[in-house]
Amino acid sequence: MKRKPVIGVMGGGVANAATSALAEELGEAIAREGWILLNGGRDAGVMAASARGAGRAGGLVLGILPGRDLAGAAPDLTIGIPTGLGDARNVINVLASDVVVAMPGGAGTLSEIALALKNERPLLLLGWPREPELPGAAAGTARRAASCTTAAEAIAWIRERLPA
Amino acid sequence: MKRKPVIGVMGGGVANAATSALAEELGEAIAREGWILLNGGRDAGVMAASARGAGRAGGLVLGILPGRDLAGAAPDLTIGIPTGLGDARNVINVLASDVVVAMPGGAGTLSEIALALKNERPLLLLGWPREPELPGAAAGTARRAASCTTAAEAIAWIRERLPA
Amino acid sequence: MKRKPVIGVMGGGVANAATSALAEELGEAIAREGWILLNGGRDAGVMAASARGAGRAGGLVLGILPGRDLAGAAPDLTIGIPTGLGDARNVINVLASDVVVAMPGGAGTLSEIALALKNERPLLLLGWPREPELPGAAAGTARRAASCTTAAEAIAWIRERLPA
Amino acid sequence: MKRKPVIGVMGGGVANAATSALAEELGEAIAREGWILLNGGRDAGVMAASARGAGRAGGLVLGILPGRDLAGAAPDLTIGIPTGLGDARNVINVLASDVVVAMPGGAGTLSEIALALKNERPLLLLGWPREPELPGAAAGTARRAASCTTAAEAIAWIRERLPA
Repeated sequence: MKRKPVIGVMGGGVANAATSALAEELGEAIAREGWILLNGGRDAGVMAASARGAGRAGGLVLGILPGRDLAGAAPDLTIGIPTGLGDARNVINVLASDVVVAMPGGAGTLSEIALALKNERPLLLLGWPREPELPGAAAGTARRAASCTTAAEAIAWIRERLPA
Repeated sequence: MKRKPVIGVMGGGVANAATSALAEELGEAIAREGWILLNGGRDAGVMAASARGAGRAGGLVLGILPGRDLAGAAPDLTIGIPTGLGDARNVINVLASDVVVAMPGGAGTLSEIALALKNERPLLLLGWPREPELPGAAAGTARRAASCTTAAEAIAWIRERLPA
Repeated sequence: MKRKPVIGVMGGGVANAATSALAEELGEAIAREGWILLNGGRDAGVMAASARGAGRAGGLVLGILPGRDLAGAAPDLTIGIPTGLGDARNVINVLASDVVVAMPGGAGTLSEIALALKNERPLLLLGWPREPELPGAAAGTARRAASCTTAAEAIAWIRERLPA
Repeated sequence: MKRKPVIGVMGGGVANAATSALAEELGEAIAREGWILLNGGRDAGVMAASARGAGRAGGLVLGILPGRDLAGAAPDLTIGIPTGLGDARNVINVLASDVVVAMPGGAGTLSEIALALKNERPLLLLGWPREPELPGAAAGTARRAASCTTAAEAIAWIRERLPA
């Protein structure tokens, strides 16, 4: 089985209906592209919704879990990776993704946005009613970060960041 | 894509010809069973050999890498997971595996054997000319650990440890 | 030796003269209070400056280092803790601190701000010309976070958050 | 406060009376030398006993805890470092120690022995009724590892491994 692009989708463990629907649509679109969906693996919020969408399209879903086992994992994971690392697993979420998409969330999502910027992963903010302020935007961060509102726009942006 | 058993194969970054051949055979057999092969991901020793075998059989190979990117990754990985955690990634190797197979190796492999015992993962020692002594063997460890010398025996032993 | 409060001081690996001077003053003031200074341990920016200040006052300085050894550690550390975890050590910076002070910095500092909010550590933003926007401010985060501009104000704020 | 040697003392969370007494004696002797005692921080077995000995002698005791907070920490820690990393904190126990002393324990202790060998930390086995077998002893490991039965012997061995 050949190596495929890994798209990390981050976002809140609590998500409203609009964000959940968008996450599910994005997950499905990622799978249809033949890409791997990576997320935080829990059966909650953006994680559960994006996994559900990708699962429905027959995609490969990789969940990097904070706990020591599969308890609380989203049912649509193809592979659940228990890490036992708690919040430190957020670093893996970012490092293992070719492109990071950050959907609305709280402090955990903000930490993943920060780590994506620090590790120079292409970063897309999707569906934020009001975008979080990114540090150092004036200093070049903007070259790697962008924002949009639909799954179709997100897929187009991601496609341009992947090796041909 | 449905969740499949994850078989972790640990072993030295340096491996002699017999160990490499056995690791390659085991990787191939794991893939033929439809199981996922998980290893430490580097292009060296038991990691590279088991990935090569599984790759040849069209299997899914997941490499949990110590570094921050894919540099030095085995070419046969389906998914490389850079962790940036160094040796701390050994914990993930164990926690993410339904069954752990430890082939000959050095101190890194010994740490994975120890972590498998501590976290009560079924543990199989495969192909050791002289087995490492396991702590607490008298105190129940033996219920979860065993040893054998061929890939076929290993597959049979693993199959019995997986949920029906 | 009795347990003492641990004050985490986060901030950029690059710092301008004003921020460095403020970090040094804060480190000295923390040591004069008899508190332990914890930071990211590197010989750069806010880390080096705060350690220097605390060291001058005879304080105990604990540096949580990203690398596997003491290379690149600030000379004023009392104890350097190499973790080999890279950015994942930021989680420890936060969890090991009774109070977290975030001084101006980039994406790494932002990740520590986010992790402090997520883990409900009292968080003080000190000396930001323009403050980073905190997520969920409306949802209660503000109860635990505040901002100020001088070391004296910071010490007073920290003192109120410590057990009597 | 000047940098002092950090001596890591590893061992079981369950310890018999002889091992506990020896751990307490070693902790006290480490403190009398003016060295810092580092251990896994929990209020159990070798961790609690070594901390108690060092505490009685007024030493500095640093506990690297597996959990996210100080719950379950030994009462004699000067500084408790919650990591939230579970078993992955064992890597820090080793990397942060100038010398590692391993007392009787189970699989967790074995993982620390393995990690000390892998990371080339001087390693002393103290008080084992029957020593665990070390991998690669023939290949040079023996240069860095030794064993003994009393705290006085341990102190003498450690002293020789520290910079003058």
